[in-house]
Amino acid sequence: VAIITLTTDFGLDDVYVGMMKGAILREHPAASIVDLTHAVEPGNVRHGAWLLGAAWRSFPPETFHVAVIDPGVGTNRRALAVRTEDHTFLAPDNGLLHSLFESPAAPAIRVIEEAHRRSPGLGTTFDGHDVFAPLAGRLAEGMAFEDVGPLVRDPVTLAPFHPVPSAGGWRAEIVHIDRFGNLVTTASRSFLRGSFGESWDRIAVRLGGHLVSGLHRGYSEAPEGDLVMTIGSAGTLEISRNRGSARDLIGLCVGDWVEIAPAR
Amino acid sequence: VAIITLTTDFGLDDVYVGMMKGAILREHPAASIVDLTHAVEPGNVRHGAWLLGAAWRSFPPETFHVAVIDPGVGTNRRALAVRTEDHTFLAPDNGLLHSLFESPAAPAIRVIEEAHRRSPGLGTTFDGHDVFAPLAGRLAEGMAFEDVGPLVRDPVTLAPFHPVPSAGGWRAEIVHIDRFGNLVTTASRSFLRGSFGESWDRIAVRLGGHLVSGLHRGYSEAPEGDLVMTIGSAGTLEISRNRGSARDLIGLCVGDWVEIAPAR
Amino acid sequence: VAIITLTTDFGLDDVYVGMMKGAILREHPAASIVDLTHAVEPGNVRHGAWLLGAAWRSFPPETFHVAVIDPGVGTNRRALAVRTEDHTFLAPDNGLLHSLFESPAAPAIRVIEEAHRRSPGLGTTFDGHDVFAPLAGRLAEGMAFEDVGPLVRDPVTLAPFHPVPSAGGWRAEIVHIDRFGNLVTTASRSFLRGSFGESWDRIAVRLGGHLVSGLHRGYSEAPEGDLVMTIGSAGTLEISRNRGSARDLIGLCVGDWVEIAPAR
Repeated sequence: VAIITLTTDFGLDDVYVGMMKGAILREHPAASIVDLTHAVEPGNVRHGAWLLGAAWRSFPPETFHVAVIDPGVGTNRRALAVRTEDHTFLAPDNGLLHSLFESPAAPAIRVIEEAHRRSPGLGTTFDGHDVFAPLAGRLAEGMAFEDVGPLVRDPVTLAPFHPVPSAGGWRAEIVHIDRFGNLVTTASRSFLRGSFGESWDRIAVRLGGHLVSGLHRGYSEAPEGDLVMTIGSAGTLEISRNRGSARDLIGLCVGDWVEIAPAR
Repeated sequence: VAIITLTTDFGLDDVYVGMMKGAILREHPAASIVDLTHAVEPGNVRHGAWLLGAAWRSFPPETFHVAVIDPGVGTNRRALAVRTEDHTFLAPDNGLLHSLFESPAAPAIRVIEEAHRRSPGLGTTFDGHDVFAPLAGRLAEGMAFEDVGPLVRDPVTLAPFHPVPSAGGWRAEIVHIDRFGNLVTTASRSFLRGSFGESWDRIAVRLGGHLVSGLHRGYSEAPEGDLVMTIGSAGTLEISRNRGSARDLIGLCVGDWVEIAPAR
Repeated sequence: VAIITLTTDFGLDDVYVGMMKGAILREHPAASIVDLTHAVEPGNVRHGAWLLGAAWRSFPPETFHVAVIDPGVGTNRRALAVRTEDHTFLAPDNGLLHSLFESPAAPAIRVIEEAHRRSPGLGTTFDGHDVFAPLAGRLAEGMAFEDVGPLVRDPVTLAPFHPVPSAGGWRAEIVHIDRFGNLVTTASRSFLRGSFGESWDRIAVRLGGHLVSGLHRGYSEAPEGDLVMTIGSAGTLEISRNRGSARDLIGLCVGDWVEIAPAR
């Protein structure tokens, strides 16, 4: 049984995700299809790239990942198939697979040839259904990765998912805000250890006029209503609020930055 | 492995969809169940009928489709099982399967006998769980379609999903508005070709005080913020806005109409 | 094929649910995973306990149910595995499995030993991914229930899901409000029969200044816009509005109470 994950900005209110699953199952009826998320901010490739990069390692080797945040659909933007660490990824060539290109493992990157398009002549704005889903199904069914198309070395990339130096320490980007109002940053545990050494868990973070100090293991280690910092599910620094929403208290957005420094 | 799709107005916040899946799996534990959508406007049978009609052909032959938008549940409205083009459909007899009755292929229509109800005596308002889901599971498990109940020829139908003539050309209904604010109409590519001939892609559409001309292959062929027309995922005319929402700009709703004429 | 259900307050916008599914599939790639709901009110253990209790019996025997509403994650709150009526449940020890402890069948309750944690050293706030999901996968793969950890007899419990006597009859709690605005109460059919005898379907319910009388089998048995009472999908009394929302009309919330008395 092949496992195929889906990451899109299609939402779940429309039939688009269901149609993609049908297009996969037409090629590989035994597929086990898992939704990663369909709530990527519409057209926000960077947001989708972070979420996919945070989640795909939870899946077993030989999983296929289809990602479609695709404002350029219908134009001549390329479509890519990428293979790395025993996983296979399909996505438009717009930076959506950026996290794979940041990894030390060198991925194999191929351009999907137009001949792999299905349903020619119906719509022109749904490559998730006409290109990516059926190709994932055929790869799951046993089609050779080499038959996807020619190797390339120049995929579209994004600004790095990594903190940058600042006057007082480092600045880390808020790359996602979850349902609970937790602010997810790019500052990984290994970055913090490398930058702040043994006292990496005694950092202070300044954001939107607030100052938070010290890392905790759980939200309820802080008094109710207080801000609290943890290492979250992506393995990076998150700013939360015990029994509340850090977003609602602080008012920051995806794309804003926080300032990290040693605690006094 | 049988594939079973679900289309309802239950939303995903409640446990109703999960309970339907349980009721399917009790009868056919190997079922591969796919959500088409659970965000049909509550009680809006016409909306559900369009979405199901737009999506089911993406699935392989011998797929089962369960659709439950059912404001008449608990009354003596009939329940139907329909077979057409190697697919099987289960739904209340309220027009929800209308698109099948518009197709040239003659479907076989059977009334589901009351004896197929499961869990008698628990609730009375959840035929999705007590009738449609378990029957889909049993059909998937191998039960003969003929054993569902007697053939009938008088299913409830709806107004046609087709443009109607108007003074200046044709009027097409907006049957769905998606997450991106794209306005989906009933004007299919084949209708446009049949009505406007070789210049079918040089039509003009008037809607809510706006005029849009020409068909494009992708949203980004228009300048950012401009309206753009494409053939969308249902194979019909859609009015969109590059990097924006046509709905938010124009302010129309499902059930409104657009005017189609040859471009000047 | 093992069936595994998920009940959380994670929502579907984030990748958390997808990551849990990946963690299950790493241990048991053939798992058939079903979402019960991910829209439990954030941190509201009682709400989740009701929804899980209302839904799990729709699934076949030997189903595994993972439930994670977990405001105490990262602290020393215990994690439980419970077995009853041929189903297996995994959840934090905070009352989320309360409905199982109300049942006459005596469940076997074990504490999940810390050794079953996966991914040590990444995040600390996602036991759904690091503990509950992989353990469900291993149990589905054949691990013995006894190997989870030692038996205990003192799980955290909640206030009973049962009406309480009042001056004029009984008071029943509103434990859930669904997408349609139906108010779901704790008053089961068997409770009504036991308390009101043969005339159990001629009760009157007072709530928020409104009085509703008599039980119906379907919403449309009442005039459009009227309140109507039915036995809903959980087998309990629900107050609804034909072609409308009882919540929007009455303005009650989860946790409010209604008064049940014999009709005059």
